[in-house]
Amino acid sequence: MLNFNFQAPTRILFGQGETNKLGKEIRKHGSRVLLVYGGGSIKKSGLYDQVVQILADHAITCIELSGVQPNPRIDSVRQGVTLCRKHQLDFVLAVGGGSSLDCAKAIAAGVKYEGDPWDFFIGKAFIKEALPIGSILTLAATGSEMNPFTVISNPETGEKLGTGSTRLNPRFSILDPVHTFSVSAEQTAAGTADIMSHVFEQYFSPTPGTYIQDRMAEAMLKTCIKYGPLAIAEPDNYEARSNLMWTSSLALNGLLSTGKITDWATHDIEHKLSALYDITHGLGLAILTPYWMKQVLNEQTAAKMATYARNVWDITETDDMQAALEGIAQTANFFRSLGIPATFKDIGLNTDQLTEIAADVTSKGSLGSFKILTYEDVLNILQSAYWGTGF
Amino acid sequence: MLNFNFQAPTRILFGQGETNKLGKEIRKHGSRVLLVYGGGSIKKSGLYDQVVQILADHAITCIELSGVQPNPRIDSVRQGVTLCRKHQLDFVLAVGGGSSLDCAKAIAAGVKYEGDPWDFFIGKAFIKEALPIGSILTLAATGSEMNPFTVISNPETGEKLGTGSTRLNPRFSILDPVHTFSVSAEQTAAGTADIMSHVFEQYFSPTPGTYIQDRMAEAMLKTCIKYGPLAIAEPDNYEARSNLMWTSSLALNGLLSTGKITDWATHDIEHKLSALYDITHGLGLAILTPYWMKQVLNEQTAAKMATYARNVWDITETDDMQAALEGIAQTANFFRSLGIPATFKDIGLNTDQLTEIAADVTSKGSLGSFKILTYEDVLNILQSAYWGTGF
Repeated sequence: MLNFNFQAPTRILFGQGETNKLGKEIRKHGSRVLLVYGGGSIKKSGLYDQVVQILADHAITCIELSGVQPNPRIDSVRQGVTLCRKHQLDFVLAVGGGSSLDCAKAIAAGVKYEGDPWDFFIGKAFIKEALPIGSILTLAATGSEMNPFTVISNPETGEKLGTGSTRLNPRFSILDPVHTFSVSAEQTAAGTADIMSHVFEQYFSPTPGTYIQDRMAEAMLKTCIKYGPLAIAEPDNYEARSNLMWTSSLALNGLLSTGKITDWATHDIEHKLSALYDITHGLGLAILTPYWMKQVLNEQTAAKMATYARNVWDITETDDMQAALEGIAQTANFFRSLGIPATFKDIGLNTDQLTEIAADVTSKGSLGSFKILTYEDVLNILQSAYWGTGF
Repeated sequence: MLNFNFQAPTRILFGQGETNKLGKEIRKHGSRVLLVYGGGSIKKSGLYDQVVQILADHAITCIELSGVQPNPRIDSVRQGVTLCRKHQLDFVLAVGGGSSLDCAKAIAAGVKYEGDPWDFFIGKAFIKEALPIGSILTLAATGSEMNPFTVISNPETGEKLGTGSTRLNPRFSILDPVHTFSVSAEQTAAGTADIMSHVFEQYFSPTPGTYIQDRMAEAMLKTCIKYGPLAIAEPDNYEARSNLMWTSSLALNGLLSTGKITDWATHDIEHKLSALYDITHGLGLAILTPYWMKQVLNEQTAAKMATYARNVWDITETDDMQAALEGIAQTANFFRSLGIPATFKDIGLNTDQLTEIAADVTSKGSLGSFKILTYEDVLNILQSAYWGTGF
């Protein structure tokens, strides 16, 4: 186990009806709010009206930034910064999923910075200050509600990049599982895959001796495997939605990465794919993951991948390599059982830019850590995931 | 799953050598420190000298309160409060295990309160303010390093009572597993039992639908079962010590109690025992636990106890009641394998006060929640645990 720091400063208000505490929570930090949200889903569900009413009841000024897209764009961030400055806002509230949250975070940092907020993502500037942020989560997926990270896309440059700062930890996040009842089967599947991918990126690590972290990671994977299908079959199943929602936060709040090197190769590849093809993040991850697993399986990694197969999928095979292969097959089958397409071909991508992606993600040196990936490795993952080779 | 709030504001600095960051961490909050510790173990290990040197290097004034005992007493708290006031101290640093930490917390609150600090424990006063607290942990057991609770004994009244406040969360806790290399086999066993008991108190709950919490609880129990014996056999095994140490914090930082009613009957009984007989907390818990498990096992509770048996002890028995009984037997055997005496008779207690304890812990109404215990239940647990009935 490596040395680490851990702190989870975001106040989580979890459960049905917790939205009513919104006004009081914001009032601890500010009174002039930028409300960041996506499309019409929160208007359709009635959550938008509820939020606006609560803000009015607490005499909180509210300026809106709507239309934040999946794979949120730097243009929305710039727009939000302008609004905050123009109206002298002092708090950013995201209502939605990870896209609204990530956009809100980038805005909160951008307001306190004189240059262009894209500078944070290309390493030209560091986040030293930010407006306080809060969120009402409507999708169990990214974990952004309980962590300091933000990922933003720049269509002009074809980049999707992340940054982070302790200043970006939301002061509070309201997690009411009822708000996720209306999430579609496809989005529930993608969200479940996103949570599982976050766990995989931290579970498959070259660091030995992280027993407690690994068993907790398996607990989260089992939760996704149990409740992902149930939430799709019964969208208003509170038990399923609540377990997925809390797991989404726990999977990326720093707990699983304590004391270990993490991988994130699959995310790096997917971010480039999303930037070029604008596909749903969770779908991209679900398609890539089994192929990544096959690519990294070797004599060195077989033992850990066999542990995954046995502890998560109850595979009884005693040979490590064989057990690992069975675990990978189960993973692929599970994602398909959620209705996720098996290949990039199935979602209408083309092969034009696969070599470009492989070159790009390996251009900055090593990619991944569980097994460090070369250009050839990444190209093989992408081509296999395009054609569905091996499954 | 019930509604809940969660926040883990304590900054954990984990790993070998992290003690060197002490001065910088304290300086964020204060410069005049009360150093709270127990006996000579930190002097013997060299940690005391290191701490004093770091404080001097950072121009931090240091006043000492030493001699804090296991089951820390209200007298030590009063003494600490007097010292803080006399020397106008602004920070309380505990170096040791849960006893030093709990004492430091009570002092930190007591300084800001005009009355007697025991008032907090008997419900006569609430903690509204406290000095900032930090800790260097030397024993994996109580979890006090990452939570807002403190338990203090009052020998005059024969009481051992707890209280809590968000003001008592340590600002930081330094967890260097190397500091636990010198912990004796007996204390390592008691600490492991204490961690496991914290998990049990939260795992065995009447609340349904807490799948993610339950799987994480099992992860922590497995960690204790794997590494408790290893840390006893190889006291300087870093992997064992680090897994136990991080698990001790995770087991009682609020994570496992999210969304559920918790039990704490075993702790309530043990606190009364400790107050009257001054036995080691972890030993008392280890002796009581299997008898508590037997007492609460019935048609309603068998399914959950069978889940425990299967998921933690790999028991394959399909009948719930039988599987539960096998799990209880494994629990008892495990504590004995750590060298913990099996009965209260074995540690030289007498039976004089068993009825008094049973009457006392059930006097305030219901005790426990997984199964609510009556006076007769508690007396049966105590008598069985005294004579070793049934194992």
